[in-house]
Amino acid sequence: MLICEVIGHVWATKKQPGLEGLKLMIVKETRANEKSAKTFVAADTVGAGVGEQVLVVDGSTARRALGADDLPIDCAIVGIIDTLEVQREAKK
Amino acid sequence: MLICEVIGHVWATKKQPGLEGLKLMIVKETRANEKSAKTFVAADTVGAGVGEQVLVVDGSTARRALGADDLPIDCAIVGIIDTLEVQREAKK
Amino acid sequence: MLICEVIGHVWATKKQPGLEGLKLMIVKETRANEKSAKTFVAADTVGAGVGEQVLVVDGSTARRALGADDLPIDCAIVGIIDTLEVQREAKK
Amino acid sequence: MLICEVIGHVWATKKQPGLEGLKLMIVKETRANEKSAKTFVAADTVGAGVGEQVLVVDGSTARRALGADDLPIDCAIVGIIDTLEVQREAKK
Amino acid sequence: MLICEVIGHVWATKKQPGLEGLKLMIVKETRANEKSAKTFVAADTVGAGVGEQVLVVDGSTARRALGADDLPIDCAIVGIIDTLEVQREAKK
Repeated sequence: MLICEVIGHVWATKKQPGLEGLKLMIVKETRANEKSAKTFVAADTVGAGVGEQVLVVDGSTARRALGADDLPIDCAIVGIIDTLEVQREAKK
Repeated sequence: MLICEVIGHVWATKKQPGLEGLKLMIVKETRANEKSAKTFVAADTVGAGVGEQVLVVDGSTARRALGADDLPIDCAIVGIIDTLEVQREAKK
Repeated sequence: MLICEVIGHVWATKKQPGLEGLKLMIVKETRANEKSAKTFVAADTVGAGVGEQVLVVDGSTARRALGADDLPIDCAIVGIIDTLEVQREAKK
Repeated sequence: MLICEVIGHVWATKKQPGLEGLKLMIVKETRANEKSAKTFVAADTVGAGVGEQVLVVDGSTARRALGADDLPIDCAIVGIIDTLEVQREAKK
Repeated sequence: MLICEVIGHVWATKKQPGLEGLKLMIVKETRANEKSAKTFVAADTVGAGVGEQVLVVDGSTARRALGADDLPIDCAIVGIIDTLEVQREAKK
């Protein structure tokens, strides 16, 4: 799972029926090197808000998170992070 | 889902039968660092045009978007973005 | 789908039985930044030759392209590109 | 499988029911270039602790590691590394 | 499939039962830019040795290579490369 921050919303009128009713949020990786931090869109499943740190799954797992294998969704927010405790930095 | 802009088309005469009749568009990530922004080909499912910002899914989800699990497609455009609202940049 | 150029061949005598009889070609991404352009091996399904630009799928979709879900293949060439028309570069 | 070091924990109260009871650990790749080493969250299945080097699987394989295909999990720790023996560096 | 060189071994006593008896080898991409060449662990299925160039599959395809869909494995060596013939470098 990726550690991301919710940074905004996206709206699309013309879209696949399977996307109707989903809250689509723009998320950005926060634990990545600034140059490689990815920004993408994830469907919210836990009531996340802008500014919150969240856990994001992708690929076929995102469809599991949405509870339906036929949805055209490949990213989903599955948890809101309360505490992130990095006890040590990895050795090189 | 990736946030991309449609930047062109691709034509292939010699191809797998499963690609017949699909509109194949060249898309490029717009919310990525310029050096790492990927350019690739996605099958359109929502009537997207060049210059539009779109939502793109990949992997097995793209086949769900096309509605047939046996298609040789791993990228699909599933929505046309009306508004992209970034309310804050992620903290480092 | 990735836009690649076929740049060579690879031969392997000792291999999984599922790879027998497949034409394995070395492909390289052509629309990527030179430093991040990936080079990898894909099974040909459309009669591609060295120097041609091709469409490549990966992951579970490659097995769909080969028509058998139990093959040990995760990359396949599914089309030979005739024309690649980039009408505009994406805005940053 | 990726070679990672466990560097911390993450807690989330608001989360998908499928994440209840799982130990979520922050892991970082140790055999990657420092700039591209990814940091992410994986569910522990082998009793790993902070500071240990571990084997991590992702995607649909992580759900296999957890033993249930409907879990919203895409990364899992599947082994604790005792010895890592690099006998030669790859030729360029 | 990725083109890798086998550079070592990894041993793990505490691991998922599905990993028992598998030969886990450390592989490194050889056709990638040095900075982005990934190093990871793959299960050997063809009797590969250190120093050999091999073909590696990942994701759900690795489980196909191992012949069992429930294994916690996402990378597998599926062939030993005899000859790698790059006939031309891709145009930019």
